[in-house]
Amino acid sequence: MSDLPELPPTSWAVLGCLGFDEELSGYDIKKWADWSIGHFYWSPSFSQVYSELKRLEKLGYATSRQYRDTGVRGRRVYQITDAGREAVRRWAIESAVEPPILKHGVMLRIWMGHLNDPEQLKQMVKDYIAQMDALNQQLVIDAGAAAEDPAWAFPRVTMNWAKRYYAAERELAEQLLAEIDEAHETLIKSSPDGTLPVHPGHWREVEAHVKGATGT
Amino acid sequence: MSDLPELPPTSWAVLGCLGFDEELSGYDIKKWADWSIGHFYWSPSFSQVYSELKRLEKLGYATSRQYRDTGVRGRRVYQITDAGREAVRRWAIESAVEPPILKHGVMLRIWMGHLNDPEQLKQMVKDYIAQMDALNQQLVIDAGAAAEDPAWAFPRVTMNWAKRYYAAERELAEQLLAEIDEAHETLIKSSPDGTLPVHPGHWREVEAHVKGATGT
Repeated sequence: MSDLPELPPTSWAVLGCLGFDEELSGYDIKKWADWSIGHFYWSPSFSQVYSELKRLEKLGYATSRQYRDTGVRGRRVYQITDAGREAVRRWAIESAVEPPILKHGVMLRIWMGHLNDPEQLKQMVKDYIAQMDALNQQLVIDAGAAAEDPAWAFPRVTMNWAKRYYAAERELAEQLLAEIDEAHETLIKSSPDGTLPVHPGHWREVEAHVKGATGT
Repeated sequence: MSDLPELPPTSWAVLGCLGFDEELSGYDIKKWADWSIGHFYWSPSFSQVYSELKRLEKLGYATSRQYRDTGVRGRRVYQITDAGREAVRRWAIESAVEPPILKHGVMLRIWMGHLNDPEQLKQMVKDYIAQMDALNQQLVIDAGAAAEDPAWAFPRVTMNWAKRYYAAERELAEQLLAEIDEAHETLIKSSPDGTLPVHPGHWREVEAHVKGATGT
């Protein structure tokens, strides 16, 4: 581990794409990311992909050549080297797995839901459900494309996971709709004038409760 | 919307904390984030919180004063202003909700699972399940602390959501265990020598399939 260069996960993801032993252009890798990795990790920009490819070539993990198809304008294609294959294999096995990062803008709005009208919050949740359904439909198409080739066995596992993930997100979102109404009623009942029913120092009580329960 | 300053969601999250109408120190806000927002959006560093508070004060969205308790060393506490309350309210209502960001390191390793030993992959998934269970247990404690106060009605909704989210992640992860073995067997069967059973140009077929299905 110690002699692997310190690279961001993005570099390893690009090298992982080349690890499928095809010659790929930056355009191909961007499409791969949109097509499958993007569903659970990362949808890079073209410029990000190109700068990662340059970095990998400099490290000796990839080689490139100019490629010309009839009628297609030239593009540079990249291929993994033995050193690159060994490095990404070791990274996948040896490096610590970082905990998932989740930044859920819908939940952030609901967290401060007292600032908002409950009907608007529910509309936001409904829009989110529609988004999840659209992603799920796209994934059915994407996963269908991967079904044909044994080499895609592991990407297929992640795409099946993502399908179930979108379905779970939908279900979780649906349960929010009733809870938003309930939270709104709780606020209205305890503070009919619409101000937040805060009593000074209640955060101290929360902190004491959490400390007491965890013994920290 | 046009006259709201362009701030990162982090600024709005900090202002949202102050939007609960308590005087809070940077330390308090860091604890709030760890305690609840961190479960679905963001666990900032102390220095990030302090620089956001300074920025919000400069914008006139918060005021601060030095606060001294008996036996406690002085700390600076922040309070939202009317302009700040109006700004964060408008942000929550008017700004476009960004799609959730998910960076799932476990899934990235599984995606390139042919580089790894299936037993190691399954151990990684089991470690991840244990992580989810630990977070869920912490959340039961955290949500218990929020149960007491009507002002926390909306944070409570997000914490209930997060509990269900962790449970769903556990279930999704458990289904991976069998699928990892299946994918490994698919690879072994189609390529007994352990190399990746790639046929040149299969990515082109995938691309054609996706294009054909979506009509793009």
